[in-house]
Amino acid sequence: MRNLTLLTDLYQLTMLNGYFEKNVHEDVVVFDMFFRKNACKSGYTIVCGIEQLVDYINNLQFSEDDLKYLKSLNLFSDKFLDFLRNFKFTGDIYSVEEGTIMFPNEPVITVKAPLYQAQLIETALLTIVNFQSLIATKASKVCYAAQGDPVFEFGLRRAQGPDAGIYGARAAVIGGCKATANVLAGKMFDIPVVGTQAHSWVQKFDSELKSFEAYADVYPDKCLLLVDTYDVLNSGVPNAIKIFKDLKANGHTPLGIRIDSGDLEYLSVEAKKMLEEAGFTNLSITASNDLDEYTISALKSGNCAINSWGVGTKLITSADSPSLGGVYKLAASYQGDKIIPKIKISEDPEKINNPGYKKVVRIYNKENKAEADLIMLHDEEINTSQPLTIFHPTYTWKETTFEDYTIKDLHKPLFVNGECKFKSKPITEIQQYVQDELNTLWDAYRRLTCPKTYKVDLSQELWDLKTNLLGDKVVQK
Amino acid sequence: MRNLTLLTDLYQLTMLNGYFEKNVHEDVVVFDMFFRKNACKSGYTIVCGIEQLVDYINNLQFSEDDLKYLKSLNLFSDKFLDFLRNFKFTGDIYSVEEGTIMFPNEPVITVKAPLYQAQLIETALLTIVNFQSLIATKASKVCYAAQGDPVFEFGLRRAQGPDAGIYGARAAVIGGCKATANVLAGKMFDIPVVGTQAHSWVQKFDSELKSFEAYADVYPDKCLLLVDTYDVLNSGVPNAIKIFKDLKANGHTPLGIRIDSGDLEYLSVEAKKMLEEAGFTNLSITASNDLDEYTISALKSGNCAINSWGVGTKLITSADSPSLGGVYKLAASYQGDKIIPKIKISEDPEKINNPGYKKVVRIYNKENKAEADLIMLHDEEINTSQPLTIFHPTYTWKETTFEDYTIKDLHKPLFVNGECKFKSKPITEIQQYVQDELNTLWDAYRRLTCPKTYKVDLSQELWDLKTNLLGDKVVQK
Repeated sequence: MRNLTLLTDLYQLTMLNGYFEKNVHEDVVVFDMFFRKNACKSGYTIVCGIEQLVDYINNLQFSEDDLKYLKSLNLFSDKFLDFLRNFKFTGDIYSVEEGTIMFPNEPVITVKAPLYQAQLIETALLTIVNFQSLIATKASKVCYAAQGDPVFEFGLRRAQGPDAGIYGARAAVIGGCKATANVLAGKMFDIPVVGTQAHSWVQKFDSELKSFEAYADVYPDKCLLLVDTYDVLNSGVPNAIKIFKDLKANGHTPLGIRIDSGDLEYLSVEAKKMLEEAGFTNLSITASNDLDEYTISALKSGNCAINSWGVGTKLITSADSPSLGGVYKLAASYQGDKIIPKIKISEDPEKINNPGYKKVVRIYNKENKAEADLIMLHDEEINTSQPLTIFHPTYTWKETTFEDYTIKDLHKPLFVNGECKFKSKPITEIQQYVQDELNTLWDAYRRLTCPKTYKVDLSQELWDLKTNLLGDKVVQK
Repeated sequence: MRNLTLLTDLYQLTMLNGYFEKNVHEDVVVFDMFFRKNACKSGYTIVCGIEQLVDYINNLQFSEDDLKYLKSLNLFSDKFLDFLRNFKFTGDIYSVEEGTIMFPNEPVITVKAPLYQAQLIETALLTIVNFQSLIATKASKVCYAAQGDPVFEFGLRRAQGPDAGIYGARAAVIGGCKATANVLAGKMFDIPVVGTQAHSWVQKFDSELKSFEAYADVYPDKCLLLVDTYDVLNSGVPNAIKIFKDLKANGHTPLGIRIDSGDLEYLSVEAKKMLEEAGFTNLSITASNDLDEYTISALKSGNCAINSWGVGTKLITSADSPSLGGVYKLAASYQGDKIIPKIKISEDPEKINNPGYKKVVRIYNKENKAEADLIMLHDEEINTSQPLTIFHPTYTWKETTFEDYTIKDLHKPLFVNGECKFKSKPITEIQQYVQDELNTLWDAYRRLTCPKTYKVDLSQELWDLKTNLLGDKVVQK
């Protein structure tokens, strides 16, 4: 595990130093991590990266080398640097479970800790969770478009650096991909890895046929051939068929072909015909070439014979929406046991946060479909034996009442008084949990473009608190 | 240094195993890394990440743990895994210097090495160089838009994972940014770091004024205040002016203000007026809020009073174009001393590569402006005492003749027979080299939208070779 303690913005440290000087650094505060818009223009966001966040928190420690560097900046007192030497996270962190589906403005992670601790971790927490949640969400869209065909993550070479490739592969599999081409990610996270040969393999031999023969000889039971190095229908597929016949004659079962250029619909349909005429049905016809959920969806709506998808650049970078804008905002500050809710007004109304120490409750109907979420103050309770009426936080006349419903409190403790409560899970289990979560959503929320907006309301108590604080600030300034 | 030896696609290893089985793994081959389109819709691409590529090559080694993992995949022979145990790069790598400006289809890096070595490194080489080149190019565009105003890299929290933040900050500074907020990048690469306070600082105190007082007290000579937590013109700026007057009275010089929301043109102009009326001229007025080169350019073309720019998400992810599509293609294979040039045809004409072992020569006019590049075979020479005529590789009737010109061979050795020839340079030196490189370009190539296309031609000899190979392949298949 790398020491990422300095993976933070400088202002976190200048603020820490300031709080230390003003002797308010031990004040307990509450910060919320949330996002204002879903990842990838999606109707939901899959929260991912929690395990890496826990690793980061558990490994927080300023090395002597770090402190020497900080001293060289001439921004910090020696007393403060001494104080950092013994830094250890001692607070509470509540988070939704990794793989949970969340919606805009809901606290995803809530940190209740001494100010200097809660502030230091902001940047890395966001870096870790923003990126993996982005890619998990993107992967879920791509897999949705593929309608059950297997999707493979092929993006490492275009990832935004090594970590993006490694943790992006993890998130892609959590979001629904069957496997990755990234060997290191495979090793680190016990993810299935896939891969056969590149164009360079085909070019290296004296002819395409010889290159296929060589591959089939080495991997007779794992023979999937790349057929577009020279000419898919006039060379690649006929050569592949020759090889497949030989394999079959020797008791092996060929896997299929991969097409990496040209018109995927036309080529796959013609290739399938040729394969079937030669007696090969049910082979894998894999496509890879700048794919994303929109192209796959368009191809699936036609006659395309592709039944397996290698998705690279546009998945690993979430190309059409390459960041999740998760933020981390001060929601409350304690004076002893007394909680002081905090609000930021800003020039942009959508940047106003929900104040106070909060929780999120999801409301399900009797078919276990999610109907709405309610953001509430931490100590509020819902009496589920009574009907529940919720209202839109801006258009307050828009009300909904639930009669036959169940609720789930979404937050679980990651850390309590600095003690780690998180238990690592196999990635297959997280992947399954994501599928279970997605099954609680109506299809309209999963639409690839213009998905339905999920209802996220505030409890009456929270709404009152926010409205009063806004009024106060407008008067006070 | 992390061991990134397994940071590769599985197909590299299945191919290696196949080459090993077929006993061609020691054949010497030539691979080119190049891109087909410039990064960031730019007129050029800044090559970046060479130092990290060298680190990666120098650290290549399969650990016992790696080999155990590979064995568990049931894809590789024990003999092959034994062979990997002693893996060491023994080939040649030629590359342009870090910070060099390059154009589509030019070999940026050329690897001449035994097949199994050249093939293994493809994926990580691309991951490293693609990303840093992308961000360096994006940063150069942002800085160009800022017309000499300082630009600061603020994107860590939205970076695609920790590495993207760290190496993205490095690349951004190489591309022209003055500093980063990322402390770890500052430490690792000796980059200037910047940062003051966040909205949470302002919210933590009983009032905005008290928060400003506290900050000025701790950092009287580094006082730059965030003025948009509640209301920029009615609260933030008037409070900042009170603080600045106190600082001035006590012999300190305030630095300025930062605005992070609202209309940056209106707010900056009004804030500047207020500051000037209070006697504060030449203060820094920093903006940050979802900026990129296009927004900065639009603001700079108006009356905007911003004179310093914090650029986050859209720089660190290159949001409108989040990948550089660098590829790595087999260009030649040796049989003893005899070189066999290699070509890939594919269904997409733009995916056809330039065959053979090549170099790139840049042609400058007498004002040291770059006029064109010529891709040539490795052993070709130009007689600069003679006029030089070059021609368009597709529209061959388009000719240009140079009379008074100089040339520069762009490639330098990084590794020769496995021996590292690379010397690390201070980042300020690379940054300066980038500026020198950019100064060789006419402004038309730097235009933010629809830049002029730089001329990249092939030598007659290379053109003939390519044309003949294409003819052969079409006949042979």
